[in-house]
Amino acid sequence: MSVYKAIVEYDGTRYRGWQSQKDTDNTIQSKLASVLGRFEGAPVEVQGSGRTDAGVHAYGQVISFALEEFCAPEELMDYMNHYLPEDIGVKSLEAVQERFHARLNAKAKTYVYRIWNSRLPNVFERKWMYTIEEPLKVEAMRNAAFYFLGTHDFAAFCAVKKKKKSTVRTIYELSVERLGEEVRIRVTGDGFLHHMVRILVGTLVEVGLGHRDSSQMPELLKNGIRAQAGLTMPARGLILWEVCYDDSFIA
Amino acid sequence: MSVYKAIVEYDGTRYRGWQSQKDTDNTIQSKLASVLGRFEGAPVEVQGSGRTDAGVHAYGQVISFALEEFCAPEELMDYMNHYLPEDIGVKSLEAVQERFHARLNAKAKTYVYRIWNSRLPNVFERKWMYTIEEPLKVEAMRNAAFYFLGTHDFAAFCAVKKKKKSTVRTIYELSVERLGEEVRIRVTGDGFLHHMVRILVGTLVEVGLGHRDSSQMPELLKNGIRAQAGLTMPARGLILWEVCYDDSFIA
Repeated sequence: MSVYKAIVEYDGTRYRGWQSQKDTDNTIQSKLASVLGRFEGAPVEVQGSGRTDAGVHAYGQVISFALEEFCAPEELMDYMNHYLPEDIGVKSLEAVQERFHARLNAKAKTYVYRIWNSRLPNVFERKWMYTIEEPLKVEAMRNAAFYFLGTHDFAAFCAVKKKKKSTVRTIYELSVERLGEEVRIRVTGDGFLHHMVRILVGTLVEVGLGHRDSSQMPELLKNGIRAQAGLTMPARGLILWEVCYDDSFIA
Repeated sequence: MSVYKAIVEYDGTRYRGWQSQKDTDNTIQSKLASVLGRFEGAPVEVQGSGRTDAGVHAYGQVISFALEEFCAPEELMDYMNHYLPEDIGVKSLEAVQERFHARLNAKAKTYVYRIWNSRLPNVFERKWMYTIEEPLKVEAMRNAAFYFLGTHDFAAFCAVKKKKKSTVRTIYELSVERLGEEVRIRVTGDGFLHHMVRILVGTLVEVGLGHRDSSQMPELLKNGIRAQAGLTMPARGLILWEVCYDDSFIA
C-alpha cells in the first residue's frame, strides 16, 4: 500500500461543499474520489484536512489517500489534473508515511476571508470575494481581532454545538489587512468549529462598520452565547489557504 | 448635451467581442448601449477606444457617449453598475469636453498577454490566461521583443490587410516578465492592427520555445509576409489594459 498527500485548490462556487453526500456527487470529495477510483480500478477513500462548506474555496486543501501499488507522484498528479474538472486542481503530490492522515494529523490551518470594500465593481475576482460597499475601519477590526488570539472557548462562534464536544480552540494569528480596495482577514488556528471563521469575520465586520465596539469581545468569549456574536459571513469570500503538518510524515 | 468618458472592465469570456453585431446582442458594446438607452429613454451611441475580439478581456477599456441632459457622474456610474451584467463594470466615469471621442482621441494603448507557464493547474485565474506547459525562455523573448520597439511596418503581424491602409505603427514599450508561474507580456503602442498583439505574442512565444531565433525579427518586419510570423495566440490571455488620452479633454 502507498499513501499519498496532495495539495488541492478549488473554486467552490458550483459545488455543494467538500464532503460526499448521498443525494449528489457534486462535491469536491466525490470528484477527487471518482478520478482516483478510475485510476485505481476500485473505490478509493479520500480524506480531507477538513470539510469546507458549499461555496467555500480552497487555495491549499490537503488530502490523503492510499493506493494498492506505488505510482510515481508526478504521473499520478498529471492523471488527476487531466481528469478533474477545471475548477479543481492538484498543485503538488507526494508519497508519505503510511500513518499519514490529512485530517487527524493536521496541526494548524489558515483561512483567508476576502472582502471587496468598495462601491466599484470587481469583475475579475468577484467570485472569491464578498462585497461590502461601506468603508471598513481596519484599525478598529485589528483591535477587536487582538482579543481572539490565544486559547479561548469559542462557543459563541459556533453554528451548531455538539454535546460533550469541546469548543475550546487556539488562534495563533488573526490579521486584518487593507490591500487597495480589498480588506483581507487571515486566521491561523489549531482547528475551527463549524462556521467559526465566518462568525469571527462577521463580528469583526460589525466592528469595522462601527456597529459594535472592540471592547465587547472579551464578554462575547466569556458568555459563549451565539446570538451575541456577529452574523455568519457568506461562503463566497472564504478560502482554506494552508494546512500545516509535522515534517515527520515525509516518506 | 453632456459627453462622458468612462473606464470599463470586462471578463470577455462569454461575449462575442466588443462591437455590436446585427445577429446578436451578446457584445460588450450592446450591453453598455442597452443600459445607457434605458437610462436616457432613447438610443445612446457608445464609442469604444477600439474593438476587442470575442473572448478578449479589458481591465481599462475607455468609452465615450453623450446624453441630452447633464447627470452627476457618480449617480450615472452607480446606475450603470446596477444594471450591467456582473462581468462588465464601470470603474470610473467623468464629464468631459464635448469634442472627446474614445477612439479618435486615443493616443496610446496598452495590452497585456498573460501566459500560465506551468504544468500545474491554475484554478482561479485560468479564464484570463493561456497555458503553455513547456518552460519559456524569457530572456530570449526579451531579445526578440527589442526589435519591435519603435516605428515599423507591421504588415507581417496583421490578420487581414486592407488596401490603401497603412500598416505602420509605433511600439513604445514591449516587456516580457516572469511572475512565478506566469509569463506576462505588456505592449504599448499608438495603435494596433487586427490581431497584431496576438501575432506578436505568438512570435515571441515561438522564440521562447526555441522554435525560432530572435535574429529573424528584422527580416520578418522587412518582408511583411504574414505566413513568416508566428501563430495568432488565443483570445483568452489578452487584456486591454489601459488607454491614454491628452489631458486637454478634461471638462
